[in-house]
Amino acid sequence: LKRVVMLGFGTVGSGVMELIERNRAYLKSKYHNEMQLTGILVRDPEKYKGRGADGLLTTSFDEILAQQPDIVIEVMGGIEPANTYVRTLLERGVSVVTANKDLIAEYGLELMEIARTNNASVSFEAAVGGGIPVIKPFRESLKGNRIGSIAGIVNGTTNFILTKMYEENLEYDTTLKMAQEAGFAEADPTADVKGYDAARKLCILSSIAYDKMIRWKEIKVEGVDGVTKTDIQNARDIDRKIKLLAVSTRDGSEIHCSVRPALVHKHSALGHIDNEFNAVEVEGDAVGKVMFTGKGAGKFPTASAVYGDLLDVLTGKTDMVLPLNDDTNYKLSKYYARRSKWLVRLKVTSMPETIDLVLGSFPIHALKLYRLNDLDNVFFVVETEDELELYEKIVEMKSQNFVQDVKYFLMYD
Amino acid sequence: LKRVVMLGFGTVGSGVMELIERNRAYLKSKYHNEMQLTGILVRDPEKYKGRGADGLLTTSFDEILAQQPDIVIEVMGGIEPANTYVRTLLERGVSVVTANKDLIAEYGLELMEIARTNNASVSFEAAVGGGIPVIKPFRESLKGNRIGSIAGIVNGTTNFILTKMYEENLEYDTTLKMAQEAGFAEADPTADVKGYDAARKLCILSSIAYDKMIRWKEIKVEGVDGVTKTDIQNARDIDRKIKLLAVSTRDGSEIHCSVRPALVHKHSALGHIDNEFNAVEVEGDAVGKVMFTGKGAGKFPTASAVYGDLLDVLTGKTDMVLPLNDDTNYKLSKYYARRSKWLVRLKVTSMPETIDLVLGSFPIHALKLYRLNDLDNVFFVVETEDELELYEKIVEMKSQNFVQDVKYFLMYD
Repeated sequence: LKRVVMLGFGTVGSGVMELIERNRAYLKSKYHNEMQLTGILVRDPEKYKGRGADGLLTTSFDEILAQQPDIVIEVMGGIEPANTYVRTLLERGVSVVTANKDLIAEYGLELMEIARTNNASVSFEAAVGGGIPVIKPFRESLKGNRIGSIAGIVNGTTNFILTKMYEENLEYDTTLKMAQEAGFAEADPTADVKGYDAARKLCILSSIAYDKMIRWKEIKVEGVDGVTKTDIQNARDIDRKIKLLAVSTRDGSEIHCSVRPALVHKHSALGHIDNEFNAVEVEGDAVGKVMFTGKGAGKFPTASAVYGDLLDVLTGKTDMVLPLNDDTNYKLSKYYARRSKWLVRLKVTSMPETIDLVLGSFPIHALKLYRLNDLDNVFFVVETEDELELYEKIVEMKSQNFVQDVKYFLMYD
Repeated sequence: LKRVVMLGFGTVGSGVMELIERNRAYLKSKYHNEMQLTGILVRDPEKYKGRGADGLLTTSFDEILAQQPDIVIEVMGGIEPANTYVRTLLERGVSVVTANKDLIAEYGLELMEIARTNNASVSFEAAVGGGIPVIKPFRESLKGNRIGSIAGIVNGTTNFILTKMYEENLEYDTTLKMAQEAGFAEADPTADVKGYDAARKLCILSSIAYDKMIRWKEIKVEGVDGVTKTDIQNARDIDRKIKLLAVSTRDGSEIHCSVRPALVHKHSALGHIDNEFNAVEVEGDAVGKVMFTGKGAGKFPTASAVYGDLLDVLTGKTDMVLPLNDDTNYKLSKYYARRSKWLVRLKVTSMPETIDLVLGSFPIHALKLYRLNDLDNVFFVVETEDELELYEKIVEMKSQNFVQDVKYFLMYD
C-alpha cells in the first residue's frame, strides 16, 4: 500500500482522484498494489466541499508531511509554492508525479537531482501533450535514436484560435473571445497566446531529446497575437495553414529551438491537427519520423497521464537516469538552421522599387512572387540556406524608406 | 554488464547490432550499464560473414545456452524453432526481447507465464508498428483508461498496395508487383495481403487493451486481394479511401475484432496514412482518441523498438504483470457491433428489381443511392445499428436470382 498525497484539487486533481477510485480493484487484482489518498492540500477547503474528498482536505503542508506519504501528486500549477513543497517532499524521499510544465521547465533538472540524491523520482508525462504518451517515448522507447528534430503543435488554445481564424475567416481578437467562451482560453491568455506555454513544453522535450537543459527564456518565442486574417489568407492562397509551431533541430554542434507561427501544408500530417488537438512529431535517425496526436489538455486526458506515471512509481518503473540533464554542450542558435522556404510579407509605398528590391535581394531561382498588386500586402516565397541568411536580407529591406513593415513565416515541411 | 545473445541475424538483427554498438558509450556514461553481445545463432554462418560479427556466429543453440546470457534478442521470426528456443531460455531465467509478432500472437501468453515463473520478462515493442512506440503506451501509459476501441493501419505492404491503387488507378495485381519490386512485399505475400499479419498485430494490441487473450484465427480477417480498381473508384466517388483496417471495439460484455478493407474519409486522420506508413488510433475513456504514426517496418525502425526494450530490461523497467492475459471474460463477436455506415456494391442483371430490393430492404432515411446506371457496379450507402443487421439483409439480397454478387465495406469514421 502506497500512501499518496495531492497538492491542489482543481479540475485535473479531481480527475486523478476519480481514476484512482475507479481503478482501485483493477490495481489490486492485477498489480497486487494499492494507493491510498491520505491528504489533499488546498488553500480554501470550503471551495472543494462535496467533491467526495471532504475528510482529506487540509490547508496545512505540515499535515501533509506528517502523513509520511510515498508519492505526491502535484497538480496545483505555477512555480511557487509548488516548487518549495515538491522540493521539501523530494528531500524526504517522496516520489513526485506532476502535471506542472512551468515547474519542470524552470526547475526540472534541479528537482530531478534532488530526487536522485534521495532515491525518489520525478515523473511528468502530463506536462506535455496532456494524455498523449510523449515523455515516456522520449525518455525510454526512442533512446536508441539520435533525435534530429522535433516539431509540435503543443498548445491547444492557440491551435483552436488559429483553426477558427482559418475556417471562419475571422480576426484574432474575435477568435480569442470564442476560445475563452468555449473554455479553451483562460481569462488571462498571455502564457498561451504569447507562446510561453508552447515554449516550455518544447524545451522540456528538446532537453530530453538532446541531453541538454534548454531554458525557454533563451529561445525565440513568437506568439499568435500578431497573426492577422490577411496572414491566414496569404497562407491559404498557397495551400497552407498557419500553426503555432514548436520546433527544434540538432545539426552538428548546434541546436535551434523556436516557437513561432509557421506555415504547414494543409494536407501534411501537422496540417490536419486542428482545434484543441495537439501533435508531436519527432525524427530519430533509426526510427524515422513518428508522430503522437490527441487532445493535449483537459481534466481526464491530463489525469490519464498522471495515472500512468503513478503506475510507473508503483511498479518501480522509474530510474536514476535524469531525463533532464546537461550532459552535452551544444550551442543554442536563435535562427532556424536548416534549408527552408519562407513566406515574406511586406507593407510598402512603392511597387516598382519593391520588386527591384526583392529581385535584387535573392537569386531568382529561389523566389516565387505571389502578390504584387496590393501595397499593404505584397508577399513572396523564398528559399534560403538558413534563417540567418533570410534575416539579414529582411533587416536590409526594412531600412528602405519605401518599406513600412516586413513579416516572415517559416514554411515547415 | 549484461550478456546478450541474438537468435537470427537478418536485416533487423544487424540493425540491432549497429544500435548496440553506436550507443555503447552513451549507455555506459548515462546508464552506467553495458551490453555484451556474446553469440548469434544462425543456420548458415557463411551467409553472414563479413558483417562484423564473424566471431559471434554459431549454429549451435547449446553453445548459446552455454554462454549463460542475461538477455536474448529473438529476431529469427516464424513460430519454430523460435518458440522452442525462447521457451528454453525463459525457463533458465533469460529475459526475451522479440520482434516476432507471429510468436507473440500465438504463444505470447504462455511464454509470459513461463517468464513470470522464472523471474524473467518478455518484451515485444517491435512486434507491432515497427519503431512506433505502441506496446508500451498500451501496457503502461494508458492503463488508467478503459479502452473502448482500436483502429489501425498496421501492415505497410498492403497500405502501399492500396495507396498505389488509389493514386495511380491500378489493379491489385499490378501494385502487388510494384510492392515486391520496391521491397515492401515478400515473394510469398500471403500473410500480408490476406490480412493475417494485421490480424496478429490487432490481436496483440486488443489482448493488452481488453485483458483477454484474443486469437487471430478466431476473428474475421479479410485481406486486400479481393479489392478491385472499381471498389477504389467507388470509394473515391464519396471522398473515401480504402484502407486495410484493423479494428476492435469493446461494448458491454462483447468484443469485436476484425481486419478488413474499410472506407475512411480521405481527410480523416487515418485517411492520411499512406504508402508504407502505419498508424494506431486508440480510444480511452479518459484520454479520448490518441494516435501513433510512423513507419511500421524496416531495419532501423524495428531495431529502434528492440533497443528500447533492451533498455527497459537493463534498467529494470519490466514487471511481473502480464500484458497478455485472460483476466476477463468477454464474448468475441464476428460482427462489427456499432452503428455505422456501409458501402454496399452489387452486381445484378436487372436494375428496376434491384432498386425495389434495396428500397425494400432498408428504411429510406438510412439510405443513399449512388450509382444506378451500371449493372456490374450498383452501389449505395446504408446506415445500420450493427453489422449483423446488414449481414442478414445481404444474405437475403444474394438469394435473389437477379443478384449475382454483393460486397460490402465498413465506413469507419
